[in-house]
Amino acid sequence: MSDHQIDAQDVRIFCGRSNPDLAQGIADDLGVPLEKSNFRRFSNDCMEVQLGASVRERTVFVIQSLVKPVSEHLLELLVMLDIARNAGARSVHAIIPYYAYARSDIKDAPRISITARLVADLLATAGATHIMTMTLHSPQVHGFFSVPTDVLTARHEFGKYLSNRDMEKTVVVSPDVGHAKSAARFAQMFNLPVVAANKERIADNQVRVSGLFGRQIHKYQRALIYDDEIATGSSVLEVCKELIKKGIMEIIPVCTHGVFSGKSLQSLAAIPQIVEIIATDTVPPPADKPSCLTILPVAHIFGEAIWRNYTRQSIGGLFSYWQDSES
Amino acid sequence: MSDHQIDAQDVRIFCGRSNPDLAQGIADDLGVPLEKSNFRRFSNDCMEVQLGASVRERTVFVIQSLVKPVSEHLLELLVMLDIARNAGARSVHAIIPYYAYARSDIKDAPRISITARLVADLLATAGATHIMTMTLHSPQVHGFFSVPTDVLTARHEFGKYLSNRDMEKTVVVSPDVGHAKSAARFAQMFNLPVVAANKERIADNQVRVSGLFGRQIHKYQRALIYDDEIATGSSVLEVCKELIKKGIMEIIPVCTHGVFSGKSLQSLAAIPQIVEIIATDTVPPPADKPSCLTILPVAHIFGEAIWRNYTRQSIGGLFSYWQDSES
Amino acid sequence: MSDHQIDAQDVRIFCGRSNPDLAQGIADDLGVPLEKSNFRRFSNDCMEVQLGASVRERTVFVIQSLVKPVSEHLLELLVMLDIARNAGARSVHAIIPYYAYARSDIKDAPRISITARLVADLLATAGATHIMTMTLHSPQVHGFFSVPTDVLTARHEFGKYLSNRDMEKTVVVSPDVGHAKSAARFAQMFNLPVVAANKERIADNQVRVSGLFGRQIHKYQRALIYDDEIATGSSVLEVCKELIKKGIMEIIPVCTHGVFSGKSLQSLAAIPQIVEIIATDTVPPPADKPSCLTILPVAHIFGEAIWRNYTRQSIGGLFSYWQDSES
Amino acid sequence: MSDHQIDAQDVRIFCGRSNPDLAQGIADDLGVPLEKSNFRRFSNDCMEVQLGASVRERTVFVIQSLVKPVSEHLLELLVMLDIARNAGARSVHAIIPYYAYARSDIKDAPRISITARLVADLLATAGATHIMTMTLHSPQVHGFFSVPTDVLTARHEFGKYLSNRDMEKTVVVSPDVGHAKSAARFAQMFNLPVVAANKERIADNQVRVSGLFGRQIHKYQRALIYDDEIATGSSVLEVCKELIKKGIMEIIPVCTHGVFSGKSLQSLAAIPQIVEIIATDTVPPPADKPSCLTILPVAHIFGEAIWRNYTRQSIGGLFSYWQDSES
Amino acid sequence: MSDHQIDAQDVRIFCGRSNPDLAQGIADDLGVPLEKSNFRRFSNDCMEVQLGASVRERTVFVIQSLVKPVSEHLLELLVMLDIARNAGARSVHAIIPYYAYARSDIKDAPRISITARLVADLLATAGATHIMTMTLHSPQVHGFFSVPTDVLTARHEFGKYLSNRDMEKTVVVSPDVGHAKSAARFAQMFNLPVVAANKERIADNQVRVSGLFGRQIHKYQRALIYDDEIATGSSVLEVCKELIKKGIMEIIPVCTHGVFSGKSLQSLAAIPQIVEIIATDTVPPPADKPSCLTILPVAHIFGEAIWRNYTRQSIGGLFSYWQDSES
Amino acid sequence: MSDHQIDAQDVRIFCGRSNPDLAQGIADDLGVPLEKSNFRRFSNDCMEVQLGASVRERTVFVIQSLVKPVSEHLLELLVMLDIARNAGARSVHAIIPYYAYARSDIKDAPRISITARLVADLLATAGATHIMTMTLHSPQVHGFFSVPTDVLTARHEFGKYLSNRDMEKTVVVSPDVGHAKSAARFAQMFNLPVVAANKERIADNQVRVSGLFGRQIHKYQRALIYDDEIATGSSVLEVCKELIKKGIMEIIPVCTHGVFSGKSLQSLAAIPQIVEIIATDTVPPPADKPSCLTILPVAHIFGEAIWRNYTRQSIGGLFSYWQDSES
Repeated sequence: MSDHQIDAQDVRIFCGRSNPDLAQGIADDLGVPLEKSNFRRFSNDCMEVQLGASVRERTVFVIQSLVKPVSEHLLELLVMLDIARNAGARSVHAIIPYYAYARSDIKDAPRISITARLVADLLATAGATHIMTMTLHSPQVHGFFSVPTDVLTARHEFGKYLSNRDMEKTVVVSPDVGHAKSAARFAQMFNLPVVAANKERIADNQVRVSGLFGRQIHKYQRALIYDDEIATGSSVLEVCKELIKKGIMEIIPVCTHGVFSGKSLQSLAAIPQIVEIIATDTVPPPADKPSCLTILPVAHIFGEAIWRNYTRQSIGGLFSYWQDSES
Repeated sequence: MSDHQIDAQDVRIFCGRSNPDLAQGIADDLGVPLEKSNFRRFSNDCMEVQLGASVRERTVFVIQSLVKPVSEHLLELLVMLDIARNAGARSVHAIIPYYAYARSDIKDAPRISITARLVADLLATAGATHIMTMTLHSPQVHGFFSVPTDVLTARHEFGKYLSNRDMEKTVVVSPDVGHAKSAARFAQMFNLPVVAANKERIADNQVRVSGLFGRQIHKYQRALIYDDEIATGSSVLEVCKELIKKGIMEIIPVCTHGVFSGKSLQSLAAIPQIVEIIATDTVPPPADKPSCLTILPVAHIFGEAIWRNYTRQSIGGLFSYWQDSES
Repeated sequence: MSDHQIDAQDVRIFCGRSNPDLAQGIADDLGVPLEKSNFRRFSNDCMEVQLGASVRERTVFVIQSLVKPVSEHLLELLVMLDIARNAGARSVHAIIPYYAYARSDIKDAPRISITARLVADLLATAGATHIMTMTLHSPQVHGFFSVPTDVLTARHEFGKYLSNRDMEKTVVVSPDVGHAKSAARFAQMFNLPVVAANKERIADNQVRVSGLFGRQIHKYQRALIYDDEIATGSSVLEVCKELIKKGIMEIIPVCTHGVFSGKSLQSLAAIPQIVEIIATDTVPPPADKPSCLTILPVAHIFGEAIWRNYTRQSIGGLFSYWQDSES
Repeated sequence: MSDHQIDAQDVRIFCGRSNPDLAQGIADDLGVPLEKSNFRRFSNDCMEVQLGASVRERTVFVIQSLVKPVSEHLLELLVMLDIARNAGARSVHAIIPYYAYARSDIKDAPRISITARLVADLLATAGATHIMTMTLHSPQVHGFFSVPTDVLTARHEFGKYLSNRDMEKTVVVSPDVGHAKSAARFAQMFNLPVVAANKERIADNQVRVSGLFGRQIHKYQRALIYDDEIATGSSVLEVCKELIKKGIMEIIPVCTHGVFSGKSLQSLAAIPQIVEIIATDTVPPPADKPSCLTILPVAHIFGEAIWRNYTRQSIGGLFSYWQDSES
Repeated sequence: MSDHQIDAQDVRIFCGRSNPDLAQGIADDLGVPLEKSNFRRFSNDCMEVQLGASVRERTVFVIQSLVKPVSEHLLELLVMLDIARNAGARSVHAIIPYYAYARSDIKDAPRISITARLVADLLATAGATHIMTMTLHSPQVHGFFSVPTDVLTARHEFGKYLSNRDMEKTVVVSPDVGHAKSAARFAQMFNLPVVAANKERIADNQVRVSGLFGRQIHKYQRALIYDDEIATGSSVLEVCKELIKKGIMEIIPVCTHGVFSGKSLQSLAAIPQIVEIIATDTVPPPADKPSCLTILPVAHIFGEAIWRNYTRQSIGGLFSYWQDSES
Repeated sequence: MSDHQIDAQDVRIFCGRSNPDLAQGIADDLGVPLEKSNFRRFSNDCMEVQLGASVRERTVFVIQSLVKPVSEHLLELLVMLDIARNAGARSVHAIIPYYAYARSDIKDAPRISITARLVADLLATAGATHIMTMTLHSPQVHGFFSVPTDVLTARHEFGKYLSNRDMEKTVVVSPDVGHAKSAARFAQMFNLPVVAANKERIADNQVRVSGLFGRQIHKYQRALIYDDEIATGSSVLEVCKELIKKGIMEIIPVCTHGVFSGKSLQSLAAIPQIVEIIATDTVPPPADKPSCLTILPVAHIFGEAIWRNYTRQSIGGLFSYWQDSES
């Protein structure tokens, strides 16, 4: 389907067990087979991985999303990178569609870890020579990596998917002022205004939204809530309450990383005003996907970035933090 | 004046040429002499530094603010760290009250540098084993450093200074939604509400503020504009225009790092509603300081942190990114 | 109980969640409190740890056994080391009573990982400046660590515990010729002969024992089967079959690391000739400990090693791979 | 003779002075010239090496066996790697047919060095980006290297050479239980049984063999003693005594690395039952080679591995520690 | 003009702001465009650079001379190297025609920095994988770099330019005994004798010359004063005084790096016996170039070295410290 | 004899086999025992070292001169440093009185190694955290080390020893213009003039001296030839010929490192005008020391430097490259 032309003898694509469908999609997009790996476990619970194809002097890609169980998937990725390096790969690329630890990006209490930095260092230690990921919790996390790193975006995917929708009387809502800029880049694609909620996080799964920043909300009928990830969904839920109170009649939460922990998806689906929830497949969709959940595939975005990288083309146009006007 | 008790034979304090008064203040606070250094320049413009006291097996502090000319001051700092390390210091602490490069913290255009990370790596290469700084442009920059780093705050200093002011009908304004959380920590000290401006940066010295997020502004008479640094002052000026339009009658911009480049200070002072501008001395105050500019000294904050570090006490209470309720 | 005298203000002892009882035992042995840590989990499954006491300029010990779930416990340890380093600890000691990954010590198939080396590198990356562990799967694993590492032994503990037993007509059996030397050091304490089984590992949990190496087995009535770890117990079971066939009437399996995965403990306990199973608490004992299982505590061995290290005494006498005659 | 096709302009092969014949053999196998190097010595005994051909942007191989004088040959290798790296080689491959320091692989006494790890680190410091070697003293030593390393085997060579021999009533003997697994892989080629001697090393050149592990020895007439290296030959001699006592009438010691220090070769040749001694040329054969000593060349094994590496083929089939059934 | 054939799609050439004409010359020599870069400055004086063309998987050259302001140009270079590395360049080559910090090459006073080493380390930290420079203050500085480094010479350029001059009764003068060997290599091209002045440096810009070493000077009429760099010109001036005193009637100072700080050029031009001053364009010539100053271009030397490096040819013939007889 | 007071429990001094007398002298000066080490050799020629005293959490000094056989002594030193680091030493100081590889300090031919830099890197890899040495071949070699390094001088020792000599009509001669500055520092102690010979090195052991630089030589009767090291003595011999030709009647060669290779000492002693040869014991004196050879001990210089370092005093006064006027 894609017209990418990569020498299948020159590259090797492997994946961990976190998101095999996305990995297969990326391989398909590049016209390169997704190689098998064997995953076993010693009786003392240590993992044992064997890559299923020679990597000698080849460009190797290892695809792994840091989804639940995160520690297990992270270690699996580290082991696979280590194997590729020590088996003589020319370069070792970690493709991490969802970099979960990006949420540990500041030290806002004493004696905690900025784990997003620690994990970036572990990846380099294990042998990654290049990293590709998508939309980090904050754009500064990019600076945590010591090897060249590309942060891709699914924004244009959302743009294409929503391009034919009626955007009359629609407002884009950022559930957190800290992500308002990212929401603005999203809104710019449709020439929509942006408001940001004044979220106070009481606990990891409890937030209080005290009023909505920005333009007067009652002028609008529809809201696109735009965020990088939805986990417990509590932010979105609180924002929905406020929006509904202000008269919004149609709500579409849009996020890159649809983690949807616990009962979050059911809670969101239960709100009548939520007509659709849009996410990508950086996180594998739940088995019991509700009908209102739309999953947009991102395999071709990674495929495109790998192809451009391989063929020495600029991949800036796929980057997360650029204004489109700059690309 | 302070009751800190450091063995003056065990530590050595030096400073570069960026902010000698602050350095002297820190040394005075600790009751330790500020050692001399010689600064010369080869005829080919290369700098040559000589530390004026033996550092052998001692704990060494080098104090340097990255103020204009930044490259010169940065290189001076790197050279001084290198000297201390190679002359046998036991540990080498870079005290950087103003880490100017924190503003280069994201890659929001292709082929630019996250220079805040690069400089963090250069400091480690030159021999820094520990870094102390104050209020970074974004809290994530903390994660760029590969050696232990403490990020202090002047927030409590502002709190003490303003503690007797009439805070009736006062609102705290964050000129940028990205810094609203930091403004909230500030506002919390006085139990004040917060609004954030919707700043769009058109160029480095040109911003457009399109409306104010948060609670209705007309209820208030006074505004404290709180930001990490004021350079061109354009954000503050734009916010002031909006505030005045909305009926605010008294404005006090408050910032940690008073860079005040170009004619910024004059422009701000010329606005009648600005009754006072408050900054600290992380950046040396201008020679022609206008009467409305209040400079709060931070030497004792660094002194306290150094002393606690030296005497194995927790310095968490001085950190920038904690909620006070957590300390 | 122990007469160790460590300045409790100078050291900090923390532990992960793998083996808190052993950690408490070590702290008690040293007369130093075991500090609390907070363990939480983000809604996206990322872990978040907070150390409960200041580590600034202190000697910090983090105790963690790599028991099931190994990935989780390993990452927890890495995060805790990272916190200690970045919060200004003077030195960071990882105490890893059971280093499970030592079993991945050779590359006996293409494209697998010598994970014991990878994990050693990850520990250094996370900030460990010194490592203490006990009896590795093979003595060469010691050479995988890039920071100073001490490998302790519980051999003398077994010696003390068994010192009053009747050792007439007793033979020591090594279930694997690769560990025969280690069994010999054990046997030397009681002046017993050693035989080694010719184990062929068919799969991780399936072995075939084809005859017993060494002296004629029918001369003996009792056998002490000595191994570094018992996981599935299949090696021991196979050896038992052979021993019983040869007329041995009393069998005591002895191991340092009692992993006892699956139904292994029940299977062993069901063999009438097995009168006792002896292990240490490097791995926490199972909740439903059968009466035949004796767990020897090793907290005081680690306490002794830490104390000697802290007080600049040689700890060679506690090392795993020495002949006692050499100590 | 070999059909390897390497672009002679793209690679450069050099060798130190330890084993020029083997180096020439490897170069011949690849159809690439062995470049000259100049070796001189300053009057203060420092060595000075000059590589005789440009290495700029080329794949460079430096061949050196760590034979006597080991320190001299090791330093020579380090200097040659350093030259290649700094003269702009694209990659620098150290080919070390005999890695003598592999014998220092455990810390079995206090305050000794695991020198096999130290030397691995020195090789990386000097610029090696990849290492090839043959049969290490223990398979774990593989994990000591921080750059990708391939450990080749001469086992198949022995297999070919002995393939037509009468193997009736023949047993394979491992002189050390620690190497029994390696002997088993050797025995498997001929479907022969294995026994292992219970060697106790009294000193580096003195061992005592107390009985033979494994199947009953009197059933056999011939023995192949299989070991990684023969240095003083004392282990083999002791084993021979035992074997002869048990009635063995024909003995063939087989080893990869024929160090044959002192009078070892003469002592072995003097035993009437020893009909042949087989070794490879990883160590240069002695000038006065006795007629019973057969030296099998291994140049083509290294040539094959280099060629496969260069042409991106898997070299797993040449690895030392695999079971053949797995390859 | 040059017949170099480099794939312009495979390499990218950028330059800082120190010496754009030389950079253009190098690009022209290679037939590759000199890519644009954008240089801006934040209002807090931090620099911001953007490379103007994609570097992904390409060989990247960044050209920068460390001329005044040195700190600014050094930091600019570090930032550009960092950008290239992190944007995915295959290799990053720093071309530094004038490495000004080479003068800080010894520690001849306590607590000073061997800054030439520090800067070499900073370049590696920023991402340089290879360095090219020209004639260092002392040849040992080459050993300060941790990445492969080529030190080129302009000697042959001087040779060509002066090849038709009347060299009767001419002597080569080294203003410093420490550089006499380099002067000898220069003199060898014309078969001229060499004398060296006994320079004592009183201060950076003040020297005393006490007599001239070497052959009797009165036999000569012309002198070529040969040095690596002329900054204040005080050494040359002092030497001239001595030479004139001894009866020399025509003097030509020749240097690689014409820094010509302050009024140095005017002072030299004012001496009637100085008939010409020869330098190269590693340092950009002054705007008000006096007629007696001849600037020899070196772009084609760097072009040649880059081309040879790119096409895997030896570049030894362009090296600074070889005797021509050895090349 | 010395009044140094070091806690003998806090430090450990070991030495390799190159210069045990000097090591004993240093230990005596510090009042600390010189600990024993065991040196053995595997039968395959690999060395094996065991340090004879616990180093845990202690300051460890390892003393080794890089004299013949240099490779052996270098590797011995590397192994001893590795042992100290891995056995838990707090800091590891390599004391290298004679750093022979300093002579490989420039790349004056293609594809050679700047081995002085390589060896400096190897020392850091092996675990040295600090280095002390004496008078390097060129002062720039100091910059090759990546750990803090102190370069001591024996100049004052020569000064003391010669202080009562009649220095009338005496001149100091530097056999190489490259070392004239060092000779000048020596001459300054006696207020003597300096001349430098114009040495051309034809081969490592063959030089041609073509005339003497500097002041007219016939005014003098005595000459002190001052050099860093005398190996073959060919430079000194050539200089002597010239001096004798010019009428000098008494010659005293003075050097720090008396390597005296081959028959050099006999050749020098055979010249009637050479009344005395002075060297230090950084290199162990020859067994058959001729009566004209005076060896000045330097143990107390190293002792003093260690003591000052240990007690946090400046050791600048002992440095090699300072002018005395600066100390």
